[in-house]
Amino acid sequence: MGTEFSTQRYDDIVKLVVTGTVGIDTVYTPRDKREGISGGSAAYFAAAASKLCPVRVVAVVGGDWPKSHRSILQGFSGVCLAGLESRPNSRTFAWGGRYFDDVNRRETLFTEVGVLQEAPPLVPSEYQSSELVFLGNTHPAVQVGFIEQFPKRALVVADTMDLWIRTAHAELCALLKRVDGIILNDSEAGELTGYRNAISAGRKILEMGPKFVVVKKGEHGAILVHREGVAVIPAFPVEEAQVVDPTGAGDSFAGGFMGYLASEGRTDFETLQRAMASGTVVASFALESFGLERMQSLTYEEIKNRLVQFQQMTRVG
Amino acid sequence: MGTEFSTQRYDDIVKLVVTGTVGIDTVYTPRDKREGISGGSAAYFAAAASKLCPVRVVAVVGGDWPKSHRSILQGFSGVCLAGLESRPNSRTFAWGGRYFDDVNRRETLFTEVGVLQEAPPLVPSEYQSSELVFLGNTHPAVQVGFIEQFPKRALVVADTMDLWIRTAHAELCALLKRVDGIILNDSEAGELTGYRNAISAGRKILEMGPKFVVVKKGEHGAILVHREGVAVIPAFPVEEAQVVDPTGAGDSFAGGFMGYLASEGRTDFETLQRAMASGTVVASFALESFGLERMQSLTYEEIKNRLVQFQQMTRVG
Repeated sequence: MGTEFSTQRYDDIVKLVVTGTVGIDTVYTPRDKREGISGGSAAYFAAAASKLCPVRVVAVVGGDWPKSHRSILQGFSGVCLAGLESRPNSRTFAWGGRYFDDVNRRETLFTEVGVLQEAPPLVPSEYQSSELVFLGNTHPAVQVGFIEQFPKRALVVADTMDLWIRTAHAELCALLKRVDGIILNDSEAGELTGYRNAISAGRKILEMGPKFVVVKKGEHGAILVHREGVAVIPAFPVEEAQVVDPTGAGDSFAGGFMGYLASEGRTDFETLQRAMASGTVVASFALESFGLERMQSLTYEEIKNRLVQFQQMTRVG
Repeated sequence: MGTEFSTQRYDDIVKLVVTGTVGIDTVYTPRDKREGISGGSAAYFAAAASKLCPVRVVAVVGGDWPKSHRSILQGFSGVCLAGLESRPNSRTFAWGGRYFDDVNRRETLFTEVGVLQEAPPLVPSEYQSSELVFLGNTHPAVQVGFIEQFPKRALVVADTMDLWIRTAHAELCALLKRVDGIILNDSEAGELTGYRNAISAGRKILEMGPKFVVVKKGEHGAILVHREGVAVIPAFPVEEAQVVDPTGAGDSFAGGFMGYLASEGRTDFETLQRAMASGTVVASFALESFGLERMQSLTYEEIKNRLVQFQQMTRVG
């Protein structure tokens, strides 16, 4: 297990942990391409969340994981890699995708699951104090397995994907009974519930267990369906030329969302609603580069400024 | 020309006029159907706007226009029908459409242009004082022809459709040079500019003449691209079962938008932004019934209450 820096100094203040993938991405867009860049749901999440609060990573990589990728993640102050397990004889998860002219549509070129088909990573004992748990997308049975390892958990939120809705429906239903919140995109919410309408789908998912559902709609924003109410938010408006690479935007949204909750120390409806804005703004930066590049240079000041812009752009009366 | 009531009492205060169609609709939804109901862009617009301010209608119907439809429009206090011309020997515009399970998609079953292929309606002289002009969707050359007939115009906004983008491109470009604002949906904005992205499309359209563009995205809300800035707004969240008939939602949005401007007597960026919220809320009621039914019972109080709800749902920080 590779421990990059001691987490002692964070032990009292680190509330947020993410479980998910750290992988190697290959991305083709209509105008450009990158091969072998830093990717994975936990990497995007942690990079985004770290702009708002410290965050612990639980993930596993293989012996082929580039040192340069390690340096990139280490460069995010606030990202704790004590739970990033390295297995020298395994191969890192790798994903390749191509975006169409309509950048909201992409096709997967290849998926090499590698180390993901082995046992899940171990959760370091010093992570047990984590209060906010984000279960990045993976098999729902694995996600459930992580939950018990965080005995101080105050809020557990999971991501999922269409694959598990189709191939692990029972396990996904079991997961939904164990989490406080679920984040998924609109087509997935539709597939899970039979409702194309995001509000109807969200309400149906609430009946399956969680206290709230965040339905992501990409360039059309996101909807929070909560037992106590509904919140809707548009995406931060960006021009076509600003969207360099949409990969990881959803994970960055989740990172900005959970990071905000951790920094506020609250999880009531109004805080979740503000967290949606935080996630939206952080995700809008993630799009501006391939991989984690833009996240590397992003400052808290830039986030705050864009949030003010966003507040002005979305004023209703 | 049928004058339903004297407009004398309004002469000083009626600022808003709409030109467009009054027609007979046949609508099939997945769950229900209505044949021969009251429809048309000007009817929907006027019904919606009348909840906020008086509004003058310029349109033309044939001898077959049902008396019951006239009664429905007359029932909206604040709708002036002095400019609703009746041609006994012509046939009223008729449209039939079928919505799919995805109510954002529909197919046109028939279009009987009837009286629309004749000369456009005359604008009554007492309408010349109109300051806010909404040019409902029709051939752009006809829309341009209306403009000069409103010498006191302070703000002219036009609607358009994909048909004119394809078949009357030069006339549409001429129209864009003459209007202050244009309202169109996202696919039309894409077709007109080559940009799928609504912000990029909106910016491109600004270069073609108008001061602002409203890009409607149906259930995903709307975007205002203005020379002075950008505003984004989600749709009012409604459940699947609440959407009875989406016909006229766009015209109702425009009516709520222009009605708000007329009631405020301002057209600056911030007022346009609030007008988007007004249009959004009024349109959300229009969906709740076939034809103008819901608009008939809708009160200003209901609009205000839903606007407060909407403000709470869309709070950003």
